[in-house]
Amino acid sequence: MAPGADGAALRVGRTTARVRYPEIDRMGVAHHAVYLIWFELGRTELMRECGCPYGEVEEREGILFPVVDLGCRFLAPARYDEVLDITTRLTAAKGARVRFEYQVERSAGPVRLAEGYTVHAAVGCDGRPCRLPEELSVRLVGPGGQTA
Amino acid sequence: MAPGADGAALRVGRTTARVRYPEIDRMGVAHHAVYLIWFELGRTELMRECGCPYGEVEEREGILFPVVDLGCRFLAPARYDEVLDITTRLTAAKGARVRFEYQVERSAGPVRLAEGYTVHAAVGCDGRPCRLPEELSVRLVGPGGQTA
Amino acid sequence: MAPGADGAALRVGRTTARVRYPEIDRMGVAHHAVYLIWFELGRTELMRECGCPYGEVEEREGILFPVVDLGCRFLAPARYDEVLDITTRLTAAKGARVRFEYQVERSAGPVRLAEGYTVHAAVGCDGRPCRLPEELSVRLVGPGGQTA
Amino acid sequence: MAPGADGAALRVGRTTARVRYPEIDRMGVAHHAVYLIWFELGRTELMRECGCPYGEVEEREGILFPVVDLGCRFLAPARYDEVLDITTRLTAAKGARVRFEYQVERSAGPVRLAEGYTVHAAVGCDGRPCRLPEELSVRLVGPGGQTA
Repeated sequence: MAPGADGAALRVGRTTARVRYPEIDRMGVAHHAVYLIWFELGRTELMRECGCPYGEVEEREGILFPVVDLGCRFLAPARYDEVLDITTRLTAAKGARVRFEYQVERSAGPVRLAEGYTVHAAVGCDGRPCRLPEELSVRLVGPGGQTA
Repeated sequence: MAPGADGAALRVGRTTARVRYPEIDRMGVAHHAVYLIWFELGRTELMRECGCPYGEVEEREGILFPVVDLGCRFLAPARYDEVLDITTRLTAAKGARVRFEYQVERSAGPVRLAEGYTVHAAVGCDGRPCRLPEELSVRLVGPGGQTA
Repeated sequence: MAPGADGAALRVGRTTARVRYPEIDRMGVAHHAVYLIWFELGRTELMRECGCPYGEVEEREGILFPVVDLGCRFLAPARYDEVLDITTRLTAAKGARVRFEYQVERSAGPVRLAEGYTVHAAVGCDGRPCRLPEELSVRLVGPGGQTA
Repeated sequence: MAPGADGAALRVGRTTARVRYPEIDRMGVAHHAVYLIWFELGRTELMRECGCPYGEVEEREGILFPVVDLGCRFLAPARYDEVLDITTRLTAAKGARVRFEYQVERSAGPVRLAEGYTVHAAVGCDGRPCRLPEELSVRLVGPGGQTA
């Protein structure tokens, strides 16, 4: 089976985050916009584990990855001070597009709180779309990943 | 044509926001999570225009509207200090669900920056789903709106 | 009396902000960090009124104004959806330093919610301190302002 | 020497934080408001270590600790993805007031980035000032701490 096919992840990473006080609202639960921050933590750590930390990609390679599409479904609320498990899957990296999928779960119990995805365009410093450089692509998804 | 059918909005509202300094990132453009804040401003003003300001709904009616699903596509970046037009459409209010759709455009020119949607569940103070109270429903979408 | 002496402001500006939902916390009041955002809105509008919008100063003049010192006292809470009046005073602009003072009040009644200050260093793109360019200084504080 | 006298801390705690992408601005460094979030992380962890996690104090004891005064000096910028050491000192807990002091340093090298303080009022659920309950006070600062 080709990598990335049938929802198989090219890469999987896990990290944790704790719900901060200013992230909760009057309902006592994390505001929905904060999940996008947690998704970003998830893919940041995944890229670091792949040997291509995002800061270096941006500074050395001159490649930016703005979000072009995202979605999120919310299943249960995250409460103040809870520790969350964020699972991030790189599910596609083809041409100038990279797709990540995320699950946020309560660490203390097997409760899924949210699941979502982001699609990113690779763009150069001039803001124009560009293909992923070969070396970056290989680090992210392995030698055959671009064709996924 | 029934209200809400074929993408017709039950209600439309417009508001503006200016891109704040802490909302931009190193790319000099608004971070993608900020669009969810602008969407929230949009539906807040729409609900106020409908005669049911969100704060009162929450405090007096004891109804909360947590987001259960959202999506956003990003078409062009929003830059520091730009004024944005946020158009919000209430496109469905049926049973315990309310759906809003959003467009964010640059005020200075007819450039669409992003479009998205949020779906909200009406829940009581106990966190359980509840139908919209009749009076709230009528204010939001008119007498026939619930059947849309 | 020299401008800026005895707490006299070199410039005064007023703007408003409305408390947003994600800005409140479980206490139902605005989180204290948000006041720094409101202070920033205040000085942004003041600089715009002086004819030197911050974005242009940064981009055209290559001058940045990072905060080097700040303080804030909180007198009463700001609640969700309240409209606030932000009064900003430019109280010193000397050498490479600029000082702003702020008052945040509830628009609906004469209630002072917070008061604070920020001190900014003028730095060039290389991160080194620099004197305010003459033209910028004149726009900000008038011909004699630098000596305040 | 009495605890808390001469700047001696009643309690000291250390935690770390990593600079997140949305926390940086166009200058590529953390926005100044984010330091207040890091200060909050610092005192949250310190209170947890004292056996009185903030969430429990708020929920079980019905005591809130709104910030009434704060200050911060910025010495050097924090850059994207840097790991920071946050040192928090509880320096006073007397009557209805608690004071924390903070230092933020770059983990990778002995560079002080910022130092600041927050003063908190203990208030009950009715918003009125109250003395710290004896048990909470003992946990926070030890048997003699209230007299510091």
